[in-house]
Amino acid sequence: MNRIGRTWDTIVDRHPIGQFTDACLRGASQVMLQNNPLTGLLILAAVAWGSIRTGTPAVVVGAVVALIVGTFTAVLLRADTASWRQGLFGFSPLLTGAALPSFLATRPLLWVYLVVGAAVTTVVTLALSNVLKTWGVPALTFPFVLTSWFLLMGAYQFARIGISTLGHPALPAQASSRLAEVPYTFGFLAVGMLKGVAQVFLVNDWISGIVMLVALAVSSRVVALAAVLGTVVGTLVAIGLGVYGDQVGNGLWGFNAVLTAVALGAVLYRPSPAVTGYALLGTITAVCVQAALTTALTPLGIPTLTAPFVVATWLFLLPKRDFAPIPHHERVEEATAVTTARPKR
Amino acid sequence: MNRIGRTWDTIVDRHPIGQFTDACLRGASQVMLQNNPLTGLLILAAVAWGSIRTGTPAVVVGAVVALIVGTFTAVLLRADTASWRQGLFGFSPLLTGAALPSFLATRPLLWVYLVVGAAVTTVVTLALSNVLKTWGVPALTFPFVLTSWFLLMGAYQFARIGISTLGHPALPAQASSRLAEVPYTFGFLAVGMLKGVAQVFLVNDWISGIVMLVALAVSSRVVALAAVLGTVVGTLVAIGLGVYGDQVGNGLWGFNAVLTAVALGAVLYRPSPAVTGYALLGTITAVCVQAALTTALTPLGIPTLTAPFVVATWLFLLPKRDFAPIPHHERVEEATAVTTARPKR
Amino acid sequence: MNRIGRTWDTIVDRHPIGQFTDACLRGASQVMLQNNPLTGLLILAAVAWGSIRTGTPAVVVGAVVALIVGTFTAVLLRADTASWRQGLFGFSPLLTGAALPSFLATRPLLWVYLVVGAAVTTVVTLALSNVLKTWGVPALTFPFVLTSWFLLMGAYQFARIGISTLGHPALPAQASSRLAEVPYTFGFLAVGMLKGVAQVFLVNDWISGIVMLVALAVSSRVVALAAVLGTVVGTLVAIGLGVYGDQVGNGLWGFNAVLTAVALGAVLYRPSPAVTGYALLGTITAVCVQAALTTALTPLGIPTLTAPFVVATWLFLLPKRDFAPIPHHERVEEATAVTTARPKR
Repeated sequence: MNRIGRTWDTIVDRHPIGQFTDACLRGASQVMLQNNPLTGLLILAAVAWGSIRTGTPAVVVGAVVALIVGTFTAVLLRADTASWRQGLFGFSPLLTGAALPSFLATRPLLWVYLVVGAAVTTVVTLALSNVLKTWGVPALTFPFVLTSWFLLMGAYQFARIGISTLGHPALPAQASSRLAEVPYTFGFLAVGMLKGVAQVFLVNDWISGIVMLVALAVSSRVVALAAVLGTVVGTLVAIGLGVYGDQVGNGLWGFNAVLTAVALGAVLYRPSPAVTGYALLGTITAVCVQAALTTALTPLGIPTLTAPFVVATWLFLLPKRDFAPIPHHERVEEATAVTTARPKR
Repeated sequence: MNRIGRTWDTIVDRHPIGQFTDACLRGASQVMLQNNPLTGLLILAAVAWGSIRTGTPAVVVGAVVALIVGTFTAVLLRADTASWRQGLFGFSPLLTGAALPSFLATRPLLWVYLVVGAAVTTVVTLALSNVLKTWGVPALTFPFVLTSWFLLMGAYQFARIGISTLGHPALPAQASSRLAEVPYTFGFLAVGMLKGVAQVFLVNDWISGIVMLVALAVSSRVVALAAVLGTVVGTLVAIGLGVYGDQVGNGLWGFNAVLTAVALGAVLYRPSPAVTGYALLGTITAVCVQAALTTALTPLGIPTLTAPFVVATWLFLLPKRDFAPIPHHERVEEATAVTTARPKR
Repeated sequence: MNRIGRTWDTIVDRHPIGQFTDACLRGASQVMLQNNPLTGLLILAAVAWGSIRTGTPAVVVGAVVALIVGTFTAVLLRADTASWRQGLFGFSPLLTGAALPSFLATRPLLWVYLVVGAAVTTVVTLALSNVLKTWGVPALTFPFVLTSWFLLMGAYQFARIGISTLGHPALPAQASSRLAEVPYTFGFLAVGMLKGVAQVFLVNDWISGIVMLVALAVSSRVVALAAVLGTVVGTLVAIGLGVYGDQVGNGLWGFNAVLTAVALGAVLYRPSPAVTGYALLGTITAVCVQAALTTALTPLGIPTLTAPFVVATWLFLLPKRDFAPIPHHERVEEATAVTTARPKR
């Protein structure tokens, strides 16, 4: 393993194409907040397997094309080199490239739409990173979410971009008890939870989920453990609150919880018992936010994507930076004085 | 009165439970931007009276439980002590706790939902306060609004969380003149305006409104006056523009105006004739924003809560900090140079 | 021409009314990101011509009234004088004043609504400019968009504010190929593209479009060229993706592209081949964002206004300020340390 690593590093250092490939592979791993080319390679293999197995090979093709386009766009825009080498400009385009063929008809024009969308995702990554730097918080996968929402909503107005599997725009309705109270067996739950890992990449396949957990373990066992706990907690909370059984079976209540658990419990805070408790509350919040955004987006006929993860993680990252809110009973003038007096963060 | 005050301070200083109770009572008063335990106690009494009288005792139970849970969560998260003692971590959870039983069925699982929601409201308070500190603006009740919107929208996807009195999701329609042109008598208007004060706490009772005005007067007569003017202006503007008479009778066009008038006219700016005019424009704006958000949320079947107050108050607070917009005809590079050269706020 | 300019400057310097008129005329030109009173005068003439010719004279009356009210409100609020003289407090109110009579019934109460709306637009201009100053980005026309959205959505709840030409709230549906595949002739396209320029001011008239291009050329030939390229690119991209032919004919796919091309390609970045390419991608993005927001706003029955221009331009302005995103795999604590250590922008 170490020898492979050393050989790889040598190749990467010598050739621009090696460097570019390394940045792309790390980009694939950055979706799960990792910085490891082997993890990225295994993840891409899992996406390929799952998308071919479920009869949607365009998903893996779109993901790889967008990963390359997005990473290359960052070169053209002369983005920060250190960030680029860590794959930070690849992971959001990759997801945009996986999402479009998942929901739109794979006509020739879609690929133009996808390439432009991948390039724009990189611009959006730069824009949002700059905004969020003010509070020391990462953009996470929000560049993907925002760009893909635009492209999916846009498709409704474009007769030449066909919609395939987006839900029909409708008014929200209360979930029916009959569809929620299904007999949950161990096998059913295990498959749903493993698919929950794979759904991070819009793949509906439990074997892909296993490969992705292995990929994470290659990079960090703590992260792999957090991912498992995330999909278990997310799925069980959703069942406890009464979501539809078929959604559970397809892993749809796992992926946002997986990402939130990994981000809060294993990567962005130093793991500890207190952090685990805090990350648990954040993961439960991600489930509620997912339900809320599902309701909010029902009239528009678009999916939440990973927005619930992003919102929950932001809400649980921001407090740790400063625990004192502005006392809102004070006058603005006084508040200003205080702000001016204090050294700025 | 002073003797009661002194005795209370002695109790508070000696016992942790006294301190905690004090923080909770001040939290109840902070909904109205006050920092006074007696005001908080009277407000809680008014909420209890109104919620029992209207046959929804779960509202006051939820409010008190959430106030305690939210305040305690801030202890666990080691939030800023001075802010905590002023009740700044209690008021938003209190409102979340009043809102959930107002709109959702009071099944056992609701109380778990409510306790988690109260804790999350405190996390959101910390997060939003940190973000808004950049512009020296308080989060107001937005942590309550955001968390409650998530929990109410989420309820549609959860079969085991029942919806009781949320409006059915629907497409917006122009208000009918027939329902707007009702005969407004003095008694009808007075009751509607007093209910407008009580609706700040989701209570539909005019006697509660009177008690709350008394509670405010205990803390500050200027604030009580601003609250009265707020509900009068808000209600009259809404009638003038042609809202439905039953909404006026239930005080629904008063509560956002009350909060905006108190915030802009009496608490966050130093009262003066100019500030009164500015606050008047802000209060009218709050009415228009309430109408706008009512339209925007109709397809989702959730209420505006106090978001109109928050939006109008933010828009009218932000300008006073600096009156020079960036000249958008200048090049970005030049703008950057200017920004860099100036000392930072 | 120069002599007229000198005479004008003399008048402006001597009389307060001259100064005020100058600020208003410059305000009219600032909609197109120019700072030139003659350009403003020609634009107002074009708006007058177009709005009278299309049988909606209330549009030009509303625009002029709101321009005056908004500019005067900035005086009352003691806004930054240099910005005020450049017309930076006039352009957003002008658009609010053009938009309300375009979509709402011109009853007497509308004019009260419009005057209040114009004053509030100036408050919102100050608020948003202050927020966006954090990132050195201008508010563009977003104060107009936000205020007008509030007032248009609000109209649904107000029986005494009538809706005239707003689209009926509806659930979005995929665009039909039949309505998209119309025979595009050169004349049809030219008229649609010229109307695309005029639609920046909600005017549906191609001669107005020509006058506006002349007005821009008076201020800057590069800007006029960018406007032409913008409407051509926007219209052709929209046709290529399959929008409805009647929308193309009414210039509805031109105006956001015009503004984006002017802002990114000619005003806010120094023109160069690289900037032209970047602005082209931004203009294409504006078309997609317009389609997306059209879908998002269909259930609410309100138009996108110039929000697509604002969103696309913000996304393409923000990256140029700093190309390094926060490496999201690092711990928050470390990120904090880095942020603290660096000198603040």
